[in-house]
Amino acid sequence: MKKILLYLSTEKHASAFDITVAHDSGVDVVLPYDNVELDEVADIIYHSLFPRGPKELKNTAVFIGGHQIMKAKEYLKKTLETLDRLPLGMRVSVALDPDGAYTTASACVGNIKEYIRVDGMNAVVLAGTGPVGQSVAALLAKEKCRVTLTSRHKKRAEETTKNLREEYGIHVEAAEAGTAAQLKDVLINAQVVVAAGPEGVQLLPENLWSGLEKLRVLADLNSVPPYGISGVDEIDRVVKKHGKTVIGSIYTGNHKMRIHQEIIKQIFRDTDQVFDLYKTYELA
Amino acid sequence: MKKILLYLSTEKHASAFDITVAHDSGVDVVLPYDNVELDEVADIIYHSLFPRGPKELKNTAVFIGGHQIMKAKEYLKKTLETLDRLPLGMRVSVALDPDGAYTTASACVGNIKEYIRVDGMNAVVLAGTGPVGQSVAALLAKEKCRVTLTSRHKKRAEETTKNLREEYGIHVEAAEAGTAAQLKDVLINAQVVVAAGPEGVQLLPENLWSGLEKLRVLADLNSVPPYGISGVDEIDRVVKKHGKTVIGSIYTGNHKMRIHQEIIKQIFRDTDQVFDLYKTYELA
Amino acid sequence: MKKILLYLSTEKHASAFDITVAHDSGVDVVLPYDNVELDEVADIIYHSLFPRGPKELKNTAVFIGGHQIMKAKEYLKKTLETLDRLPLGMRVSVALDPDGAYTTASACVGNIKEYIRVDGMNAVVLAGTGPVGQSVAALLAKEKCRVTLTSRHKKRAEETTKNLREEYGIHVEAAEAGTAAQLKDVLINAQVVVAAGPEGVQLLPENLWSGLEKLRVLADLNSVPPYGISGVDEIDRVVKKHGKTVIGSIYTGNHKMRIHQEIIKQIFRDTDQVFDLYKTYELA
Repeated sequence: MKKILLYLSTEKHASAFDITVAHDSGVDVVLPYDNVELDEVADIIYHSLFPRGPKELKNTAVFIGGHQIMKAKEYLKKTLETLDRLPLGMRVSVALDPDGAYTTASACVGNIKEYIRVDGMNAVVLAGTGPVGQSVAALLAKEKCRVTLTSRHKKRAEETTKNLREEYGIHVEAAEAGTAAQLKDVLINAQVVVAAGPEGVQLLPENLWSGLEKLRVLADLNSVPPYGISGVDEIDRVVKKHGKTVIGSIYTGNHKMRIHQEIIKQIFRDTDQVFDLYKTYELA
Repeated sequence: MKKILLYLSTEKHASAFDITVAHDSGVDVVLPYDNVELDEVADIIYHSLFPRGPKELKNTAVFIGGHQIMKAKEYLKKTLETLDRLPLGMRVSVALDPDGAYTTASACVGNIKEYIRVDGMNAVVLAGTGPVGQSVAALLAKEKCRVTLTSRHKKRAEETTKNLREEYGIHVEAAEAGTAAQLKDVLINAQVVVAAGPEGVQLLPENLWSGLEKLRVLADLNSVPPYGISGVDEIDRVVKKHGKTVIGSIYTGNHKMRIHQEIIKQIFRDTDQVFDLYKTYELA
Repeated sequence: MKKILLYLSTEKHASAFDITVAHDSGVDVVLPYDNVELDEVADIIYHSLFPRGPKELKNTAVFIGGHQIMKAKEYLKKTLETLDRLPLGMRVSVALDPDGAYTTASACVGNIKEYIRVDGMNAVVLAGTGPVGQSVAALLAKEKCRVTLTSRHKKRAEETTKNLREEYGIHVEAAEAGTAAQLKDVLINAQVVVAAGPEGVQLLPENLWSGLEKLRVLADLNSVPPYGISGVDEIDRVVKKHGKTVIGSIYTGNHKMRIHQEIIKQIFRDTDQVFDLYKTYELA
């Protein structure tokens, strides 16, 4: 029986990344549903489950993507409520990975932990208001770092840290880092820095990070030049430079891929798996 | 050569149910076209046929879904007109099953006939204005039942029975059943009752149907609790209770699945099949 | 590893023709992206490439379709710019074939050259403002024909020939052919005529073309009756009638199919192929 992955996205276009990974992880058919509204979720879930019997349903699974992390979480909640209303045995596993944020953040923090004992460290997530950045912040806080999350706009940073408090019960500091002076200020005591900005935008110049005395580990998440952290072009590996460890974006990306593929395998192994951020991080 | 099913839907989202059944019935590729407008049908049909030669076209077929039964029928008509304009040999089979209504109604009436000789009986289709309900009414009328179709709104019931008269040349009585008193009134002489309401809505309380003396067969079509007919939770089978036969929704659903799968097989066996309601019912 | 074709379309519906040909040419999965805006192209390209490594990327390719030839060219340009920004080795092949115009025009002109030495001939493309018509005109001009392109509206013909001059640096004459007299006038010196009008519309009556003394080769591109060139119903072959050679639309269509399938094979063989009009014509 074919492995069918129901892919729900809040966006106009379902992610070619997620669909490709699904196929490369053994899925036979991906059914992409884009532009999905919250009140359409139940119907789509019902329709994807009903054609198969309880014993066949391990060949069906649900994956929720899309850019908007808060919205995607509501979709997960709605999906689980819908599954709970079904007769016994009518169930499928579900994974949530909006914008690849959970798998990427898990890989990123998992990698950092290979090079430093993070408990009690000062960590800064630069340009951290996006799905990946805030998930990195959440995982670092869970690992007992003191985390600061920056944005060019103080207000956006504060909104994000407020969301993180409400969602995960964690405290993350918000900081504005629009100017070079602000950036230096926020980084002065950091042992760990993650650059979580968009593709092709440099966030951290080499002449700044090379001189930060306490800094020990840097991780970049942008793999389109110019990279987020300047001065290191070997983005497919971990490099030692200026006495610091720099984790390249492709290196983290490869780890992310292994986690992502493992999730796909697990949601087709059992019908009761639910992959949220913390569950995903267990695979890192 | 891959079996390709062109799936046309008038809705925003093509049905995950129909696509899953297609894959589970041996189709290799489903091409879902959603939000299809009537004046786009010809172009889509042409483009799906032209790449293949007459001998290859038995590996291509068309399936028309969507919630709106009247609209779907227009799409079938347009599809057949389009096929008729093509050179000899350029043809594919077509199935129409809006909202699964034809296959579900066929299974439902087919099952009822296993337990009662329906010719001349009084049959009531509760909440019968939807695609499935009106198709059940049409088939029961074709089998020479005296059929009454109910709605909470008299006007909607009347519109539906008017459509049925125009479409199939059959007479179905319209009745309002918004209150318990109206419901009892409409059921008092019924030998057959079908509950065709939406998922998760109870239509017929046990203390009402248990006391209806003439009633012999009940069929429920709602498989999300609370069920349409209360008092019977074994929805995957046929149950005898209060001296009456109650046909569960999953039991009918399983029969529907066999009909649905058989249609998929037949539209890929020959290129001249057209499955409408009556043709579908022949498989029940 | 599965062969995945990313299909980008500017239209509401991705072409069932192109998707079917892809499957019939060995592609495992087609990811259709419709309604794509120019500023979405980069993101979609990134997301389809990132999950696979340099050595795996020959199993991914991009195909750009849609009706609007000028817009599709911008999408190709944007796609190539996006690929150029990626790290070394991260690359896939790309084919552009808006509305099948490049493959059809290549097949059409390739076929004509089998029957006449086109260099220096007078060629007329009837109803040539669409994607196929203007591509035929471009290829005939490249082959050193003196080309005239007609439309019922002079202005539209002129816009098209202006585009052709800007795009390919070639000169094509614009002519109005709304009436029988205009049509005769424009054809009086033609040795080659291509009928590039829409499906089911007759452009050239037999009693006109049979009497054109200089005319030697006619090619029709419409395969839905009534055909573009009347008097020849054997559209799957090349027919000699009234002393002239008439190339049927299905005959050209079969040639187009071979070119189209060859393109699909080549874009999955290497990662550096770019199929535009001239590159496509090399396969004719």
